[in-house]
Amino acid sequence: MYSPTVQKLIDLFSKFPTVGPRTAARFVFYLLRLPQREIQELIEAILKLKKNIKFCPLCFSPFEGEGNLCKICADSSRDRSLLCVVEKEADLAAIEKTQKYKGVYFILGGTISNLKKEKIKNLRIEELKGRIRKDPEIKEIILAFNSTLEGETTSLYLERILKSFNKKISKLGRGLPVGGELEYADEETLGSALESRK
Amino acid sequence: MYSPTVQKLIDLFSKFPTVGPRTAARFVFYLLRLPQREIQELIEAILKLKKNIKFCPLCFSPFEGEGNLCKICADSSRDRSLLCVVEKEADLAAIEKTQKYKGVYFILGGTISNLKKEKIKNLRIEELKGRIRKDPEIKEIILAFNSTLEGETTSLYLERILKSFNKKISKLGRGLPVGGELEYADEETLGSALESRK
Amino acid sequence: MYSPTVQKLIDLFSKFPTVGPRTAARFVFYLLRLPQREIQELIEAILKLKKNIKFCPLCFSPFEGEGNLCKICADSSRDRSLLCVVEKEADLAAIEKTQKYKGVYFILGGTISNLKKEKIKNLRIEELKGRIRKDPEIKEIILAFNSTLEGETTSLYLERILKSFNKKISKLGRGLPVGGELEYADEETLGSALESRK
Amino acid sequence: MYSPTVQKLIDLFSKFPTVGPRTAARFVFYLLRLPQREIQELIEAILKLKKNIKFCPLCFSPFEGEGNLCKICADSSRDRSLLCVVEKEADLAAIEKTQKYKGVYFILGGTISNLKKEKIKNLRIEELKGRIRKDPEIKEIILAFNSTLEGETTSLYLERILKSFNKKISKLGRGLPVGGELEYADEETLGSALESRK
Repeated sequence: MYSPTVQKLIDLFSKFPTVGPRTAARFVFYLLRLPQREIQELIEAILKLKKNIKFCPLCFSPFEGEGNLCKICADSSRDRSLLCVVEKEADLAAIEKTQKYKGVYFILGGTISNLKKEKIKNLRIEELKGRIRKDPEIKEIILAFNSTLEGETTSLYLERILKSFNKKISKLGRGLPVGGELEYADEETLGSALESRK
Repeated sequence: MYSPTVQKLIDLFSKFPTVGPRTAARFVFYLLRLPQREIQELIEAILKLKKNIKFCPLCFSPFEGEGNLCKICADSSRDRSLLCVVEKEADLAAIEKTQKYKGVYFILGGTISNLKKEKIKNLRIEELKGRIRKDPEIKEIILAFNSTLEGETTSLYLERILKSFNKKISKLGRGLPVGGELEYADEETLGSALESRK
Repeated sequence: MYSPTVQKLIDLFSKFPTVGPRTAARFVFYLLRLPQREIQELIEAILKLKKNIKFCPLCFSPFEGEGNLCKICADSSRDRSLLCVVEKEADLAAIEKTQKYKGVYFILGGTISNLKKEKIKNLRIEELKGRIRKDPEIKEIILAFNSTLEGETTSLYLERILKSFNKKISKLGRGLPVGGELEYADEETLGSALESRK
Repeated sequence: MYSPTVQKLIDLFSKFPTVGPRTAARFVFYLLRLPQREIQELIEAILKLKKNIKFCPLCFSPFEGEGNLCKICADSSRDRSLLCVVEKEADLAAIEKTQKYKGVYFILGGTISNLKKEKIKNLRIEELKGRIRKDPEIKEIILAFNSTLEGETTSLYLERILKSFNKKISKLGRGLPVGGELEYADEETLGSALESRK
């Protein structure tokens, strides 16, 4: 249907998260309408990303600027006894936004789905173990994963793997979300909300 | 548009919860197609409701059968030190389904919206106070309302009202619901999930 | 979970169109809160429905009042050469609302699903054939069914059945609905919109 | 929240159609995980787009390859008496997919919203007039715009502008879309479906 150059770019955009072929085609038509100057700006921004962004050796957050550590890991006011393990950067950003957490992080880089166990090797499991081994300050490891099947599977897997370190391991509390109604809550959510009442 | 008899019934069905005029019209056309025998069955079931159903004097649950108390209040194995205050029958049913609660209940009969404060007098506030006054066994009052604005307003109102009884007052825990994702959780929900981690 | 009287009424309400068990339970709790006087009003409205409403022998519309025919069939200004066959009362009401149709109607009483062919005998097929046979004024039969699989199946079935009457048989035009976008229209809809351009 | 390089790219992706800041952030994190080789592939595909893609001087479709005209305009079997004016490439693609149209196209490059009349100068109105002036073969101009407020406004505007050419001007037919139900159709859609019955 589309010419090869257009189709090639549609295929590449279709690999972006949440993007299907129809949206990918809209992206391409958007770029076609863009003046050359803005195309150049986009390409430079993509290239700069790879050039400027470093990954923090402690938490694997992307960051830029001087120093070897990301802003959070370099911040001496953060509580190093708390290590919060998250799936991805956006989850770290979501937790920071709550302004309720003063510890440090570790980005695992993905979750384990029941179906694709071979993907475990793409996760930073060894790096996480190394981090905990080298850092005696850590007292509690918070497994902050989604309440989805994939998130739960990952939590259970990490719990088993990290048991031997003899640290406190905790998970996010379950309960009614803001706006949640008892009548429409599933039994597990409502049961947890009852148990964690206060 | 519709004839008076049809319109009258559409108006009455439109007062049912979740029913708008279009659905009400579908109800009426459904009844028109129903054989006389099934219409009779429906009417008898409605009449029996008013005749057979009593309201438990302790928790205000509707129930039927012998005895003065509903099944839960009559059950000697329930923990009478825990009183769970809910908005409506469906919320009680939702909590029972979790099988995580062994205490007793009190149905308030509604919630307080910020806008319609005059409706407070329709709620069983005095009955709730009477119940707590007469029942020294009660140690904890659980305010189990929706995490909505109305539910929160009602909880705050009851907390103030019930303070003088010197009982422990608790509320349902907030957190990620089953299936919830960190990235899409609001800050309050995620903050509560962190604080109630375990 | 619920007491027999409540459960019985939940079961009856669950047969109403669009109503599931949870909504049915809300209906019952709504009725429980209703004063006796309003319950009586509802029951009388249901009984009146069966007593007051007659079905027009020409089009099978429900109607009330004097006379043997419904308002539309009794209206001498309507064009009797156009017979619009619809599935149900609500579809007739929808067409009347457009104020674009001046002919008369016939309510078939349902549609044919591919799966439940035995249900054909519940439709007013014989009555429709009788109506067309007795009424030489009819020049065009409009099959006004939903553009769904069931509606299409019914249209095709009627077309075959009514062929021998040698009347013009037409179907609703397909095209983009108000608010429809080309990019998201299916091929058949967009193809029809092109063919029926004007 | 994000570092300047990341934020810059989030801002640029946020201008893509359908993309908000949250999705844009996911795109950036996706690129950060991508190996350098795949980044290079993406950048080359974007650069090639600008280099390889020409715009057809007749219909303004993007195309590549030899020749001065796009595949459709160069195809001698297409019916040059029919000119279909569309908003954007995706609409042309949608019409081609129906395989019901054998004429040629003209891409206007946008629509007129009531609010932003100044944007009219970005549309190819003059080019459209030039095309019709130079091409005596054209007999019918089909205004194939969305059935939305913007699409309708654009159709009305073009009708007025193109009137003086004394060509037949047509618009897509309105009616029930595939899957549409009479009961839920708006009055205009259902009225059009009745009028375009066949």
